[in-house]
Amino acid sequence: MSELTTPRGRAAEPTGRAERYDAERYDAKRYDAEDPLAAVRGRFVLDDSTVYLDGNSLGALPAHVPARLDDVVRREWGELRIRSWDESGWWTAPERVGGRIAPLVGAAPGQVVVSDSTSVNVFKAVVAAVRMAGEGRDEILVDATTFPTDGYIAASAARLTGCALRPVAPADVPAALGGRTAAVLLNHVDYRTGRLHDLPALTAAAHAAGAYTVWDLCHSAGALPVGLDEHGVDLAVGCTYKFLNGGPGSPAFLYVRQDLQDRFDSPLPGWNSHAEPFGMATAYTPADGAPRGRVGTPDILSLLALEASLDVWDEEGVSVGAVRAKSLALTDFFLRCVAAYVPGGRVESLTPAAHAERGSQVALRCEDAGEVMKRLIARGVVGDFRAPDVLRFGFTPLYVSFADVERAARVLAEVLQEP
Amino acid sequence: MSELTTPRGRAAEPTGRAERYDAERYDAKRYDAEDPLAAVRGRFVLDDSTVYLDGNSLGALPAHVPARLDDVVRREWGELRIRSWDESGWWTAPERVGGRIAPLVGAAPGQVVVSDSTSVNVFKAVVAAVRMAGEGRDEILVDATTFPTDGYIAASAARLTGCALRPVAPADVPAALGGRTAAVLLNHVDYRTGRLHDLPALTAAAHAAGAYTVWDLCHSAGALPVGLDEHGVDLAVGCTYKFLNGGPGSPAFLYVRQDLQDRFDSPLPGWNSHAEPFGMATAYTPADGAPRGRVGTPDILSLLALEASLDVWDEEGVSVGAVRAKSLALTDFFLRCVAAYVPGGRVESLTPAAHAERGSQVALRCEDAGEVMKRLIARGVVGDFRAPDVLRFGFTPLYVSFADVERAARVLAEVLQEP
Repeated sequence: MSELTTPRGRAAEPTGRAERYDAERYDAKRYDAEDPLAAVRGRFVLDDSTVYLDGNSLGALPAHVPARLDDVVRREWGELRIRSWDESGWWTAPERVGGRIAPLVGAAPGQVVVSDSTSVNVFKAVVAAVRMAGEGRDEILVDATTFPTDGYIAASAARLTGCALRPVAPADVPAALGGRTAAVLLNHVDYRTGRLHDLPALTAAAHAAGAYTVWDLCHSAGALPVGLDEHGVDLAVGCTYKFLNGGPGSPAFLYVRQDLQDRFDSPLPGWNSHAEPFGMATAYTPADGAPRGRVGTPDILSLLALEASLDVWDEEGVSVGAVRAKSLALTDFFLRCVAAYVPGGRVESLTPAAHAERGSQVALRCEDAGEVMKRLIARGVVGDFRAPDVLRFGFTPLYVSFADVERAARVLAEVLQEP
Repeated sequence: MSELTTPRGRAAEPTGRAERYDAERYDAKRYDAEDPLAAVRGRFVLDDSTVYLDGNSLGALPAHVPARLDDVVRREWGELRIRSWDESGWWTAPERVGGRIAPLVGAAPGQVVVSDSTSVNVFKAVVAAVRMAGEGRDEILVDATTFPTDGYIAASAARLTGCALRPVAPADVPAALGGRTAAVLLNHVDYRTGRLHDLPALTAAAHAAGAYTVWDLCHSAGALPVGLDEHGVDLAVGCTYKFLNGGPGSPAFLYVRQDLQDRFDSPLPGWNSHAEPFGMATAYTPADGAPRGRVGTPDILSLLALEASLDVWDEEGVSVGAVRAKSLALTDFFLRCVAAYVPGGRVESLTPAAHAERGSQVALRCEDAGEVMKRLIARGVVGDFRAPDVLRFGFTPLYVSFADVERAARVLAEVLQEP
C-alpha cells in the first residue's frame, strides 16, 4: 500500500521508472519478433486501443466467423430450412465438432461430443461416474476450491444418487480417497488462482482407490496439453468459449473414455442420445459411442460458430504445444513486468511461479481489486475482478502479444499509483 | 389404394379434377385476399418454388434476423467482448426473452425463462414437480403417446427420485390419477397426430387429485392459445424453433407458476440460478423468480437470434388469437382440398376434425408415407415423415398462405397418382 501514500513527482523516480519501462518494452519487441504464433493474432478481431486479457472468460472473435455464421443463417436455415439437418450436417455436428476438439485435449476420435452447458455436462458426468462405481461406493469428492457451479451440481448429483458430497482441496484428495469413494470431480486449472493441478497423479490416485475421475477442463482446454487418453482420465467436461474462442455461451464438451462408453448411463437420456432417434420408439436404447452424451436438439447457431472458430487451430504452426510454450512465456513476462513496475507489496500473485503448477492466467491479490479493475478497463486493459480481492488476467497465446503484456503491467502500475 | 392401379388418361377424369382444382384455387385466392395476417408472410425468407409445411419442426427465417445476429457477432462479441454481458444485456437475456414468450402462452411477467433444450427443461420440471408433491407421492404419469424424449427423461426423473413411471393415454389420465400421483407430464398437442389435448380439464383433474402438472407446449406455443395462468398450470416447457421461429436448436423455455417458484427445487442448480452468481459462494442459494430455472451460461447467439425472431409478434394485427383463427382455417381448407383431390382411401387423417381437438398440423396416414414424402419434397412441398406411416404437415399461420395449402393438396394428389 506504500506507493499510494508516497508523494509523487520525486526527481529520481520517474527516470528510474522510464528506464525500467524501456528495458521491458525492448524485450517485448524482441519476444514478439521471435514469436512463432505472432501471425495468428491477425486471424482475430482486435483493436489496438485494448489489451484483452479476459480470453479466459470470453475468447475474442475469429475474423472469419461472422461470414460463416451468416451463411448458416441465410442459406442453411433461411433457404434449406429443415433439409439442413441432413444436407448441411447439422444432425451430426455435436460429434463432428467434438472430433475437432478431441486432439486439443489429447483424445483419440470418437470420445468427445459437444452439447449443452458445462453445468449440464458436469451433471451427466458425475451421475454417470457414480453409476459406474456401483454399489457400496456412496461418496463423491469435489474440489473444495472449485468454480461454484461444479460444487452446486455435484451436490445435486449426490442428493439424487444417494451419495454424500465431500469438499476436499485437490492436494488432499489422495488422502481422502477410500473404499467408499465413487467419483472425484476436479478442476484442471483453478478458475481463481490459475493454479494447474496434477491431473496425471490425481487420476492415478483415484484409480488406485477404485474411484472414477471427472475433470473440469474449462480453464485448460485450448491453453495447455491435457492428455486425457494418455493419463487414463475417465470423464471430462469443458468450456468452449474461453481458450477455444467459440463465442458467448457456446456449448460445452463431454469426454467419455472409449472403454467406459458402454457403461455411460446418462441421467439425461434425451432423444438425441437414442440409438435410433427417428425411430420414435417408446423404449430408450442408448446410442453407442460419443453421441450417448447428447440430450436434446443441438443449438446449431452457437455450435456452428464454435466449429468455425476451431479453424484457427488448423493454421500452420498452431498446436497446443506451441500455445503452451507461449503461454508460459507470456505469464513469466507479465509477472516480471509487474515485479519491475508495481510498487512493492501493492499486489501479490496467487498464481504459482512453477511452470508445472501454472495455467494460462495470472491472478493478483489486490486490496481494492474491484475499483482497480474498473480503472484498468477504463484505460483499455481488460481483465476481470473476482470477489473479494482478485485481479484476474487471462493470456490467450493465439492473440495476446508480449507488447500487450508489457502495456498491461505498465497501466496496472500507473493505476495503482493514482491518488 | 384404387387410384394407383386405375388406368390413367380417362377422358372424364382430368376434366373433373381440373374443375375441382379451379374451384379450390378460386377459394384460396379469396381466403388469401381476406387474410388479416397475409402481409406478415413478407417478414419471412421464403421462395415461391417451395410450400413450406414443416414449420412445426423448424420455423422459417424471419428476414431481419441475419442482420441482427451479425450485429451480435461483430459488435457485441467482436468489439465489446466481455463487456456485452452487462452492456448488451446478455446476462439477463434468458429472463428477458422469457418475458417476450410469456404473453404468447398466457403467462403474466416473471414466470418464463429461456435456457437449455426442451429435454433438459422436462427434466428440471418433472423432478421439481415430484419434489413439490412431497412424501407419499411416488408415481409419475406420462403421456403414453408422447414425443419420445419426454418419456425417456421422465423415466430418468422417476429413477432418480424413487418414483414409478406409468404411461397413460391422455384421455385415461383422470381415471389413473390417485393419491400416489406426484406429477403428470402431458403434451398439449400430440407431435404425431396433431391432436390438441384438453389442458384445462386435465390440469383440473390433476389438481383435484393433489398432483402437479407439467405441460409440454412444443407444438402449441405460438400456434394457439395456451392460457397457462388462466388454467392454473403448474409447470410447462416448450420449444422455440417451431411455431416461434427461433432458429435451429434455439433454446427452450420453462414456466414455473409464480406461487410455486419458492418451492421450485431444481435438479440442475447451476451457477446461473444462484441468488448471487458472481458472489462465487460455496453454498448454493437459489435465485428468486424465473431465473431459478437457469443452469449454466446461456448460448447467446442462439438466444438472441430467437429474441429477434419474436419481433414478428409485435407487428400490427399479429396475435395468438389471429394465428389460431387462421390456423384452423388453413387446416380446414387443407382437409377439404385433400378430400376433394386425393383418391378415396389413399390417405386417412389422424388429426381430429373437431377444432377443439386440433393443433396446427394435419397428419395423414399413408401406406408408403416415407416414399411419398420424398416425392412431395422433390416437387417443392415440404412436410415430414414420421415412422411408420405418417405424412405430417405443419401450418404456420404467420407465413403459410391458402394458395400454399391448395398447392400442397394438389401435389399430394398428383404424387399419389403416379405409377
